[in-house]
Order: sequence, then structure tokens, then C-alpha cells
Amino acid sequence: MSAVHQENSPRADCIFCKIIAGKLPSTKVYEDADTVAFMDIGPVVKGHTLVVPKTHCDPITNAPADVLQKTILVVQKIARAQFKGLGAAAVNVTQANGALAGQIVPHLHFHVIPRFEIDGQARNWLPGKYDSPDEMNAFADRIRKAL
Amino acid sequence: MSAVHQENSPRADCIFCKIIAGKLPSTKVYEDADTVAFMDIGPVVKGHTLVVPKTHCDPITNAPADVLQKTILVVQKIARAQFKGLGAAAVNVTQANGALAGQIVPHLHFHVIPRFEIDGQARNWLPGKYDSPDEMNAFADRIRKAL
Repeated sequence: MSAVHQENSPRADCIFCKIIAGKLPSTKVYEDADTVAFMDIGPVVKGHTLVVPKTHCDPITNAPADVLQKTILVVQKIARAQFKGLGAAAVNVTQANGALAGQIVPHLHFHVIPRFEIDGQARNWLPGKYDSPDEMNAFADRIRKAL
Repeated sequence: MSAVHQENSPRADCIFCKIIAGKLPSTKVYEDADTVAFMDIGPVVKGHTLVVPKTHCDPITNAPADVLQKTILVVQKIARAQFKGLGAAAVNVTQANGALAGQIVPHLHFHVIPRFEIDGQARNWLPGKYDSPDEMNAFADRIRKAL
């Protein structure tokens, strides 16, 4: 077993690995060989669904390419079903990496959240600004150099 | 030219199509044949980057599978660069479909937002709850039937 495989094996202490293994209950809406989607029990908006790869990986930067590519197609599938089945007027997709980003369960997952009305849930985060164009360019350059 | 191709052709009134065509300026950090990443000029957090497929599509439900799969790998690439190059402690990925979801530019794009500290930007949205397990099951069933 390779190190990479061990990295992505089920974790005994991972709540999503337990759900995937059937050791914890969930309300699943979709499942295939690689991915599962189930209801978030603390919905931002009713209908809020989590899309989770069966392979344990975290954060998104550690996800194998094929896992990520399969997962995002299920995100799309669930978004379609929220529009069609729930009559959503809009849909948010979010994904967090790290506690400072609001992540609670450290197993890659996408939130798919239907929106029906101006519901008091703010538009995500507030836009800010750079002190100068030079400052923006400096941030861009640090990203470019790390690619 | 097929209807699908027309659907995904550049739009004269699309600000991101104009950026991709070089008709509007942007601070790009990454570009390949299919995808571009550039700085958001109204950053939620400094370093905030947009990842945009060159193919015009919107919302996510209309994206061709290969476009979506290429785009999500660039999201991953930018997240890695934000951790490594900016020293981010965490990273948020978000994507909006529809004005009620906070979408402004109707061309598929992912926000990749570095997080450095408890910065006054809330943890996305607040969790809610279902009135009963039956209510959650009813939402789940409407999603399942629409898949």
C-alpha cells in the first residue's frame, strides 16, 4: 500500500468516513461508486446538501485529480436537482479548507445550498479593496511564483 | 455551429468574456488553453482570486462536464498557491448561481479566498434547522426525484 493510498484511506475518527461506511446515519440523496450526497442536518437553507467523495482527502489541495473531477460533477447534478426538484431560484456552492475558513469536518466536501428568497443569509462575504494597484500586483506575483 | 456551441460562445455583453479576449484588463495569475485565473478587484480578503473557464457557460448546471472538470483542477492549483505563496492558514472556495445567491457576473466562476486570521468576515452562512426529521426527508425526496 502506497503512502498516497494510506493518505486517502478511511479514517477511524472521521465522521464522513463513518457515514460513508454506514456506521453513522445520514439522509442520502445520491450515491455512486465514488461519491455520496446527503442532507446537511444544520441547513443554511432547507435543502442544503453535502457532496462528499468516498475517498478520504483533505484539504482540497490533497485531493487526487480524479476524485475532485468526479465530485464536482455530482455537485453539478445536485445543483440541477435543487433547481428542478426544490424550485430553487439560485444555488450557492461552497467549500472550506481549514478551521479559519469555517471547516468543521476535515474530509473534502462541497456544500450545495438552494436559495429561494432574500432570506437574511447575507451574500457570503463583503468585498474589500487593495490599498493600491501595486499591492494587488504584489499579491498576484506571490501566487504566480507559487504555482 | 450547434446550439450547444452557440450556448457556450463568447458573449458580447459578458465582462469575463471580454477579459478572456483581452478587451478588458485584469491581473492574471494563471492561464492555460481552457481556463484563466485573475485577481478579484474587490477582494473579500487580499489575494482573492477568480477561476474562470474560457468557455462561456452559466449557471454551473449548464457547464459541459469537461469544462467543469478542467476548471476545478485550476481551483485546486490556485488554492495550493495561496497556501504556499501567500502563507494562507485556510482557503474558501465559493461559487454562486443566480442573483439571489449573490452572483454578479453571469459567467461560471469560482472564488478562491485565502484566510489568514479571524478577520471579521463571518463563517459564510449561519446553520439553521429543520422543523422535524420528516421535513428533512421531504426535501431529500424532492431532490432524489429530480436527479
